[in-house]
Amino acid sequence: MINYEKLFSKNALGMKRSEIRELLKVTRRPEIISFAGGLPAPELFPVEQVKEVTDYILDTEGKIALQYGPTEGDQRLKEELVKHMEEEGLKTNVENVLVVSASQQALDLIAKVFLNRKDIVFVEEPTYVGGIQAFNSYGARMVAVKSDDNGILPDELETTIEGLIKNGFRSQLKLIYIIPDFQNPSGITTSLERRKKLLEVAEKYDLIVIEDTPYRQLRYRGESVTPIYSLDTNDRVISLFTFSKIFAPGFRLGWIVGSKEVIEKIIMAKQAADLCTSPFTQSITYEYLKRGYLKEQIKKIKENYKEKMEIMLDSLEKELPELEGLKWTEPDGGLFLWVTLPEYMDSRELFLKAIDKKVAYVVGDAFHPQGKMKNAFRLNFSYPSPKKIREGVKRLAEAIIEYEDEIKKRKLKDAVIFP
Amino acid sequence: MINYEKLFSKNALGMKRSEIRELLKVTRRPEIISFAGGLPAPELFPVEQVKEVTDYILDTEGKIALQYGPTEGDQRLKEELVKHMEEEGLKTNVENVLVVSASQQALDLIAKVFLNRKDIVFVEEPTYVGGIQAFNSYGARMVAVKSDDNGILPDELETTIEGLIKNGFRSQLKLIYIIPDFQNPSGITTSLERRKKLLEVAEKYDLIVIEDTPYRQLRYRGESVTPIYSLDTNDRVISLFTFSKIFAPGFRLGWIVGSKEVIEKIIMAKQAADLCTSPFTQSITYEYLKRGYLKEQIKKIKENYKEKMEIMLDSLEKELPELEGLKWTEPDGGLFLWVTLPEYMDSRELFLKAIDKKVAYVVGDAFHPQGKMKNAFRLNFSYPSPKKIREGVKRLAEAIIEYEDEIKKRKLKDAVIFP
Repeated sequence: MINYEKLFSKNALGMKRSEIRELLKVTRRPEIISFAGGLPAPELFPVEQVKEVTDYILDTEGKIALQYGPTEGDQRLKEELVKHMEEEGLKTNVENVLVVSASQQALDLIAKVFLNRKDIVFVEEPTYVGGIQAFNSYGARMVAVKSDDNGILPDELETTIEGLIKNGFRSQLKLIYIIPDFQNPSGITTSLERRKKLLEVAEKYDLIVIEDTPYRQLRYRGESVTPIYSLDTNDRVISLFTFSKIFAPGFRLGWIVGSKEVIEKIIMAKQAADLCTSPFTQSITYEYLKRGYLKEQIKKIKENYKEKMEIMLDSLEKELPELEGLKWTEPDGGLFLWVTLPEYMDSRELFLKAIDKKVAYVVGDAFHPQGKMKNAFRLNFSYPSPKKIREGVKRLAEAIIEYEDEIKKRKLKDAVIFP
Repeated sequence: MINYEKLFSKNALGMKRSEIRELLKVTRRPEIISFAGGLPAPELFPVEQVKEVTDYILDTEGKIALQYGPTEGDQRLKEELVKHMEEEGLKTNVENVLVVSASQQALDLIAKVFLNRKDIVFVEEPTYVGGIQAFNSYGARMVAVKSDDNGILPDELETTIEGLIKNGFRSQLKLIYIIPDFQNPSGITTSLERRKKLLEVAEKYDLIVIEDTPYRQLRYRGESVTPIYSLDTNDRVISLFTFSKIFAPGFRLGWIVGSKEVIEKIIMAKQAADLCTSPFTQSITYEYLKRGYLKEQIKKIKENYKEKMEIMLDSLEKELPELEGLKWTEPDGGLFLWVTLPEYMDSRELFLKAIDKKVAYVVGDAFHPQGKMKNAFRLNFSYPSPKKIREGVKRLAEAIIEYEDEIKKRKLKDAVIFP
């Protein structure tokens, strides 16, 4: 047999089948209430409107929609995106926009364009699994920076950077990767002050800021915070958006906003990576935006997820036991919240009990490049129904209570055996 | 201003805006008959059937088609692909198939999984532009191996390999990239004997063979040659297929066939690169295959392109001047043929004259990793109408005749000035 280990690239040898994805398989069993996925609620997909718009596109420009398209993306779609972003507080121009096959591709292309093997990316603690995968796939090293309820801690970031510079890593420092709005997995929004300070740090140490903001349009309470892109005066910020959470993940459509020079380089990388994003789904999405359907859709999604989030927060408050150190975030939008367990608990141990009770989540260490944060987990509230959220949180509470009892018993036993 | 040169990766610094693509822009002017592109004929796109099938998918499984899907691809589509390939002489199993966002993504993922910077890929002379771009984007080095009317020369390949091994490059030798059926750009089909010998060389030196075969189904005369994949007994061959030439490039759909171990590794790379290929276009394509429409469509395309190819070959025979060294390939299928000019001619100089005559092609050096083959060019016959093919070849002949006259005059002048 052929020995692939000799033939695979160093980057490929560093790619592992995610253990987390194996855990997730369990959560797909039908009897399990899953807070594990990150899926939009399919019952909200605008199937009828997609059908209407698709028929129109095939009738009026089928031959263009089914042909190859420019790597840069559909010009008309990009014009609509510029308008859409302006309503979201981000002013830019068509030349600064590149359509991609959803934001995972954006992360991949950015990693390819900026990262040599062993280069360093600063990420929030916790951070997005897909970000970890993309950076890892280019052999990059990730340094997690502590974050609190207002987002990443710029002072911690600066201290970490100084430490790395002292140790000779100056030329490897490249990117700061941040999900500022209703972060995945924490649900936290980075405050305006933190955004400004983060940008100052980036400026001081000549780093690029990747602002990944797939949930920005899904705010359920409070006021929008200015995008980091709009605070930037020096072409240092690249923003990533996607249609996956506000329209349809099945279309695989997202977009990147950045300086012309960066966009130009990413276009070259994209041309080598897939020539172009589907002109078919781009045409449909353009027409969908033009007809004003996206606004209606976002409104519908917000109403639905807001209710689910409130139910989840209520249920957690009502059901979860009072334990020192047990707490959870209270997001203003997005799809997720983050539960921190007492330090002596391990979310993987709890996971097995939760599965016994037929409820599931994603363990905290999945969201840390070095697998820390074992005493935390992520809950998703966009996918399950309100009824399932209530029932699921009840089951989760039972699992925590049992786990706490077990730990107490273990301690008691240890105390008896080793007095 | 920010200095990106310091921040971009080595791979990114090696990516250049293709000069060829700039040349191609000229060819899009409406008055120009273009043999330059590689586009399928849009008038053949099965727009009505796509509409029928899309409506059905949205009616019956809209919520699944618009949701995220598995990285591995739609299981049902893969089953259809296995059946389809069996009819094309390639027997495999569903676990050996991975759906990708067309074959350019296949090339990108394969490059990522196998190539460290400076690793070596053997390519045919000439070879596909997109292959050059994909391998270059990972900092790989390409070595072009001479080919004749029966494909790549295995003895030349072996001599080249031996030379590289002597010079200490043993561990960097990784891939042989070959387009065996109606090659892009040459139109040549690799003979069965050459395929077997190529595989022997790969076996001897422990190399992976990438068999890129986007045109395999578009044979207009003669008998199919066994896929290299089917000759392989040692999991050494990876085959790439696409729907771009037989259905619709706008769907961005293709597939990879390989050993389970390779497919598994590419799945990991794909997960980091874009999570999944569009479930929407996959569902539509599955249903399209299931209804038997692909077979009808391939038949329709073959009839159309066969006629166009014959017209182009006839016109070349009739119109082109008799010049020592002027010749062209006579493909049995595909979209392209390759014209070789006398050695003293430069296809870029001729290009300017051709543009004056309002006809265009792609210059030969675009298809060589080191920019050789300046006295050749590629002609596409799938996109232009029969009428335009006739007229375009006439114009091309005029350009060649003028160019030849000019060269003669230049020589005469040189002879007078420097006797």
